[in-house]
Amino acid sequence: MRAITIAEPGGPEQLVWAEVPDPVVGPGEVLIEVAATAVNRADILQRQGLYKPPPGASTYLGLECSGRIVEVGSGVEGFAPGDEVCALLAGGGYAQRVAVPAGQVAPLPKSMSLLEAGGLMETLCTVWSNVFMLAGLTAGETLLVHGGSSGNGTAAIQLAHQLGARVIVTAGSAAKLQACRELGADVAVNYREEDFVEAVEQATDGLGVDVVLDNMGAAYLDRNVQALAVNGRLVVIGLQGGVKGEMNLNTLLMKRASVSATTLRARPPEEKAQIVAATRNGVWPLIEAGRFRVIVDRVLPIEQAAEAHRIVEGSGHVGKVLLDVATGNGG
Amino acid sequence: MRAITIAEPGGPEQLVWAEVPDPVVGPGEVLIEVAATAVNRADILQRQGLYKPPPGASTYLGLECSGRIVEVGSGVEGFAPGDEVCALLAGGGYAQRVAVPAGQVAPLPKSMSLLEAGGLMETLCTVWSNVFMLAGLTAGETLLVHGGSSGNGTAAIQLAHQLGARVIVTAGSAAKLQACRELGADVAVNYREEDFVEAVEQATDGLGVDVVLDNMGAAYLDRNVQALAVNGRLVVIGLQGGVKGEMNLNTLLMKRASVSATTLRARPPEEKAQIVAATRNGVWPLIEAGRFRVIVDRVLPIEQAAEAHRIVEGSGHVGKVLLDVATGNGG
Repeated sequence: MRAITIAEPGGPEQLVWAEVPDPVVGPGEVLIEVAATAVNRADILQRQGLYKPPPGASTYLGLECSGRIVEVGSGVEGFAPGDEVCALLAGGGYAQRVAVPAGQVAPLPKSMSLLEAGGLMETLCTVWSNVFMLAGLTAGETLLVHGGSSGNGTAAIQLAHQLGARVIVTAGSAAKLQACRELGADVAVNYREEDFVEAVEQATDGLGVDVVLDNMGAAYLDRNVQALAVNGRLVVIGLQGGVKGEMNLNTLLMKRASVSATTLRARPPEEKAQIVAATRNGVWPLIEAGRFRVIVDRVLPIEQAAEAHRIVEGSGHVGKVLLDVATGNGG
Repeated sequence: MRAITIAEPGGPEQLVWAEVPDPVVGPGEVLIEVAATAVNRADILQRQGLYKPPPGASTYLGLECSGRIVEVGSGVEGFAPGDEVCALLAGGGYAQRVAVPAGQVAPLPKSMSLLEAGGLMETLCTVWSNVFMLAGLTAGETLLVHGGSSGNGTAAIQLAHQLGARVIVTAGSAAKLQACRELGADVAVNYREEDFVEAVEQATDGLGVDVVLDNMGAAYLDRNVQALAVNGRLVVIGLQGGVKGEMNLNTLLMKRASVSATTLRARPPEEKAQIVAATRNGVWPLIEAGRFRVIVDRVLPIEQAAEAHRIVEGSGHVGKVLLDVATGNGG
């Protein structure tokens, strides 16, 4: 098969669509012929040599995909060759075929195209596991989403809004803020022009937000804690603003608040399977009712993965940048 | 009645056992004739003018007490004058009488003296709500307790040990470490001689601890995060090492770990009532089976509250420094 390989750790130009050995399906796994995948920030770090795949994972890029099952390993129930599915991957989505534990695979939601579903699972499982399973956001609470126009951001806005929470977002341009509002954001803050802590204070009558979904890490840590309400929960899922963060623990203590940080990729397959099952349970009904969709910035053929990386690194996109692998499969 | 009053914010010499107006029992409250109370660090901060009582709370010192009910407010069920009880207070324990919401009162555990029970509730509710309710420590997990010989520390060691967790403690002298071991600590680390992160690494085969109960705040923040296991939970309940803390968020993220900070005093009465009920449910059976006790460093008459503060500030004690108020009551 072909897969995107990394000639040397470095820039997007290092990505090469090359002939590689086929993956072998193991016990409990299914083999998927990939229809589509999507670019995540972790892919860029991995390309740069800054993010080693977890032990045992495919060394190819790609944390999510859609496609058709072509082979089922021993002990797998509930899937058969020909099934259209989407999957959460530890790696290997930027390829024509990928082997994945069956627990990380879900049937394609009705009404969603195979192409869109290529950008569904990493994003959706990240948001669901952090905002709802870990932070326990409930109807009537307020969520602050940084990077509101990102893949994770656009998913978080829709889910929180549909489930009855109030949503405040930050983003860096008028067009992005408008896109966030259209997805359900109640308040959209341009972080280049406004301090988000003050904006949160105004929007919440000084109470603060119940949950923050953060992709900035150190740069926002102390201000995120300031923006929290009593019993607030800050969840850090990205470190785009650095890793060494300072915060005022007295503020955290007086609010009885918490700071968690997570990553999905490093979790063992059993935890991923739990998250996939919970996400499917929580979100498939919303998708099939037309209340949640993958926000697609654009679609590029897998051979143009380098260009797709440039777009995501440029941060001009809204939603997901998808890679169409079916073209490489002759689809 | 008499209560300890603060002449001016400052040193222990400012504490004066003075005549003050009697408290008035409100709806849903009981009036307790205090038998004993105990010194907590928050009392010292309040004496120094650094910790304002929450709105509506008694302005007198004292976050816990034991005693006899002398009056029951309207709407209170389950308590009657003459009952021997212990109580979690928002303030007012350093006095002959205190009015407290009935939800924060529990019957005296069988086999515990009124005197010992004066140092039970703030400590026990702090440890139970943080280590068990919030951090969810379970049998087979490992708990790291800083300040193992403190009131909170001696309670945490006993509870975690009795409930099947492994316990690592830090303390600052051989005598304190020995006291911790006798209460059930499996590993005792002298923080003056050893780096606790290294000691944890050795004691856990490099896995780290599942829960940390911390009283040092900023000074230990980054090292506490280093000491955590995957899925680890750090709970900060004291800031003796400062408030502005730095930590490596990438370490937190790769471990999928969390940092919480809490205080009991500022919680609304409904939350305190839930905590008291859960603590009573979880710990009274252990107390009555002789598996948990209040570790008493010494007992002073309430008139010597200043000396009791000096002892706690000197940090030479092990367990609780109790104040006998019954003496002031002529008991």
